[in-house]
Amino acid sequence: MDTTTPSYDALTQAFLRLHRLQHLQSIAQWDSAANMPPRGNEARAAAMAEMSALLHRLSTEPQLARQLDDAEAEPLSEPQRANLREMRRAWRQSNALPEALVQRAALVTSRCEHAWRTQRPANDWAGHLPNLREVVAVAREEAQALSQQLGLSRYDALMDRFEPGMRAATIDAVFGELRRWLPGLIRDVIDRQSREAVLQPQGPFAVDAQRRLCERVMRLLGFDFDAGRLDVSAHPFCGGVPEDVRMTTRYRDDEFLGSLMGTIHETGHGRYEQNRPRELLGQPVSESRSMAIHESQSLSFEMQLGSHRGFVGRLAPLVAEAFGAQPAFDADNLHRLLTRVKRGLIRVDADEVTYPAHVILRYEIERPLVEGEIEVDDIPALWDAKMAELLELDTRGNFKDGPMQDVHWPSGLFGYFPCYSLGAMYAAQWFAAMRRATPDLDARIAAGDLAPLFDWLREHIWTQASRWSTDELVRRASGEPLNPAHFAAHLRARYAPPAAR
Amino acid sequence: MDTTTPSYDALTQAFLRLHRLQHLQSIAQWDSAANMPPRGNEARAAAMAEMSALLHRLSTEPQLARQLDDAEAEPLSEPQRANLREMRRAWRQSNALPEALVQRAALVTSRCEHAWRTQRPANDWAGHLPNLREVVAVAREEAQALSQQLGLSRYDALMDRFEPGMRAATIDAVFGELRRWLPGLIRDVIDRQSREAVLQPQGPFAVDAQRRLCERVMRLLGFDFDAGRLDVSAHPFCGGVPEDVRMTTRYRDDEFLGSLMGTIHETGHGRYEQNRPRELLGQPVSESRSMAIHESQSLSFEMQLGSHRGFVGRLAPLVAEAFGAQPAFDADNLHRLLTRVKRGLIRVDADEVTYPAHVILRYEIERPLVEGEIEVDDIPALWDAKMAELLELDTRGNFKDGPMQDVHWPSGLFGYFPCYSLGAMYAAQWFAAMRRATPDLDARIAAGDLAPLFDWLREHIWTQASRWSTDELVRRASGEPLNPAHFAAHLRARYAPPAAR
Repeated sequence: MDTTTPSYDALTQAFLRLHRLQHLQSIAQWDSAANMPPRGNEARAAAMAEMSALLHRLSTEPQLARQLDDAEAEPLSEPQRANLREMRRAWRQSNALPEALVQRAALVTSRCEHAWRTQRPANDWAGHLPNLREVVAVAREEAQALSQQLGLSRYDALMDRFEPGMRAATIDAVFGELRRWLPGLIRDVIDRQSREAVLQPQGPFAVDAQRRLCERVMRLLGFDFDAGRLDVSAHPFCGGVPEDVRMTTRYRDDEFLGSLMGTIHETGHGRYEQNRPRELLGQPVSESRSMAIHESQSLSFEMQLGSHRGFVGRLAPLVAEAFGAQPAFDADNLHRLLTRVKRGLIRVDADEVTYPAHVILRYEIERPLVEGEIEVDDIPALWDAKMAELLELDTRGNFKDGPMQDVHWPSGLFGYFPCYSLGAMYAAQWFAAMRRATPDLDARIAAGDLAPLFDWLREHIWTQASRWSTDELVRRASGEPLNPAHFAAHLRARYAPPAAR
Repeated sequence: MDTTTPSYDALTQAFLRLHRLQHLQSIAQWDSAANMPPRGNEARAAAMAEMSALLHRLSTEPQLARQLDDAEAEPLSEPQRANLREMRRAWRQSNALPEALVQRAALVTSRCEHAWRTQRPANDWAGHLPNLREVVAVAREEAQALSQQLGLSRYDALMDRFEPGMRAATIDAVFGELRRWLPGLIRDVIDRQSREAVLQPQGPFAVDAQRRLCERVMRLLGFDFDAGRLDVSAHPFCGGVPEDVRMTTRYRDDEFLGSLMGTIHETGHGRYEQNRPRELLGQPVSESRSMAIHESQSLSFEMQLGSHRGFVGRLAPLVAEAFGAQPAFDADNLHRLLTRVKRGLIRVDADEVTYPAHVILRYEIERPLVEGEIEVDDIPALWDAKMAELLELDTRGNFKDGPMQDVHWPSGLFGYFPCYSLGAMYAAQWFAAMRRATPDLDARIAAGDLAPLFDWLREHIWTQASRWSTDELVRRASGEPLNPAHFAAHLRARYAPPAAR
């Protein structure tokens, strides 16, 4: 082989192989959630663990380190250089931690999560405590090891796995600002909405009709069914591979907005995946940029667009067609249903306005926890205080709807929560940029013309994948770095418009 | 690790790893047929090819040869020794052929099969010819290489991949005998049946109702839905893993016996898989014994049981319940429909009586073809002559329903066809043995008590897996080696009973 970039070429081959094997792992993962019968679980877990170990071995082969160094000196194009940067990042993630620590982390998180599945419904904080202590101990060790290599604080080092380049200093500033006006806004909105009449849709809503409605809306949103599917799983997600995106939702026959809005959310993830650049598919540079950027796509679809009054006007006749006409399907009423704000204990059930409160609370606990400033035993009191402060709710003694409600901590995912609210902020920032590029965007949406929206996202986000750092991507897309003012303006415009204030 | 069997232990680890990775490959394979959207095809093919290459690398790691030798001298139990024998067999299959030949075979078969998919409907034998010549040339090379290593004739060496221990000398004797009486029996049965009135069921038959009927019959047949599923694919098969068996069928709304009997057939494969021994799961000794033994399970279910008058008496009310009563669903009429004999051009559409004629014809062509006694160009004339002789049909010029009808030759599967009829013979032999063990078996079946049947198969076939050679398995199960007289007796008893002769 005659090439001036032998090391770079060898790396692309290695990463392509990883990508192909990861494909099988992704499909098996989706299958586990969407199809697998109960007795298949043990063998599947063993098969996927074997594959994880294999992928880890292939990601830590000794020659990769040398090839990464040698490739730096090779004559690479700019996209190749970006790919090399992302290869190094991926390599660092795989090689940062000693094998023994990786195995111990797998063990304690799997033990903690497994027990949590029964401890949570039993409200058994005392039983959960020793397991969670072990998980936090291991997370701190991981954070310490990563911190030394990356020159970051311990929490930043963990967060960097999900949100490269993001730092607690930024989060502190952004969430600190949010924290000042959010409780007041929630109070105002709830007060205003308490004077609005809202009709509840009358069920039952046949699951088949829900599925057809979801698929119809996915088509409206540009999802390519020749390169993906919609199935059912207990916890909706978007998996698979870019050429074959596997989305899931779940249906209840007593209500339909959950499956519909959940599907719209996952369709945002799905279109990002389906539209990642083809030229370097399978290479790290063509991967999605980060968890927050991914979430900015699902929230652009679900919140910015899905609860947009103009779009709801397009949705309303489809809903009536699916289930038969009823007064609650009037577009104004449907919009009121979709924008209803209510303080609640559970993050995943939260509306767009109260959601950030749940995230701020978790961030304000997990950051000092990882840094060693507080201990696991301190969590309940902090949780209670912050819930009272942010959402005016009493959570004392209610662990199952309190600090035990999320799978993240039992499974060792520290540093992930901020991505949800960063995603909401980026989504608002994209829509602000779109409105500058297409001043009649809202009228176009109301008229059912979604092309300006999709074209903008395709050009500025989807096809850019990991070509740039997140900060650079955000600046190129919107002309400025992360600016939470757009999110604030969005919430005020939608939930507390001047006329109503 | 303190062990007296270090090499054997290392081998079990290596084979367990292969088994686990193969699990992902099996699920991906099933998914490709049952779920995958069209644009997923290319990436999936690349991912599965990567995995095949990986599995081949792991199966040919140099230390395996030494470990296999060293393990022979270790103090192994009898089951371990049987496992070692099967490990060596699996190893030999993976290591027998030079890498370059394996790659060339993959290339020419994939080219031939791909072109065949459009050439067959176009009846384009001339276009198919050069591709098939290449496939046969490679198959002969493979046969030559395997022949030298195994000390077998070339055809025997190919057949040994699917049916270990089976030899052309046995097939010649068995098929030679069959050939003498089969055309006469076919003539007699068709003549007798021409005087019978048969009512045709009136469709359409809703696909949902067919699916529910199939699942109900699978339950009746003991399929464990906690460890498997029924889905849809263009070509029905039984895949997955023992803990999670993935069966498929296909539905047409103008008839239902195809999906029902196809499902019963695959359920036979499925129960074999679900009941392989658990102790050494993942080890070669717990794999199914051979293709013919596997087919003996599907044909025990579909033909021996499924078309048994007593069982049809149990089936008839379920059919009426599924689609609403009609005269054609009378048990006697349903049984006549299921045992209708008709000469036809297509093997996969053939009934139990004419099917062996299709297999004999193919065997009589592919054996001399592999041995170099005839050439690809000779096939059409031989096909025409044998079809006239065995089934009194004129196939001249009709290549698409003649030698181009099966995927086996285009994809290089020489030595496979005999397994179908060997399976039918073994199935008849099992039922003869069952009737000796349970003299009132037929009455029990008619009464809906299938336990004696399943208990016998579980004890003698399913749980034995690859513990013994096929010949030993057959002797232990039925007290004698392969004896085609049972198949002859079965066909005569069902299709030309003394009263009717």
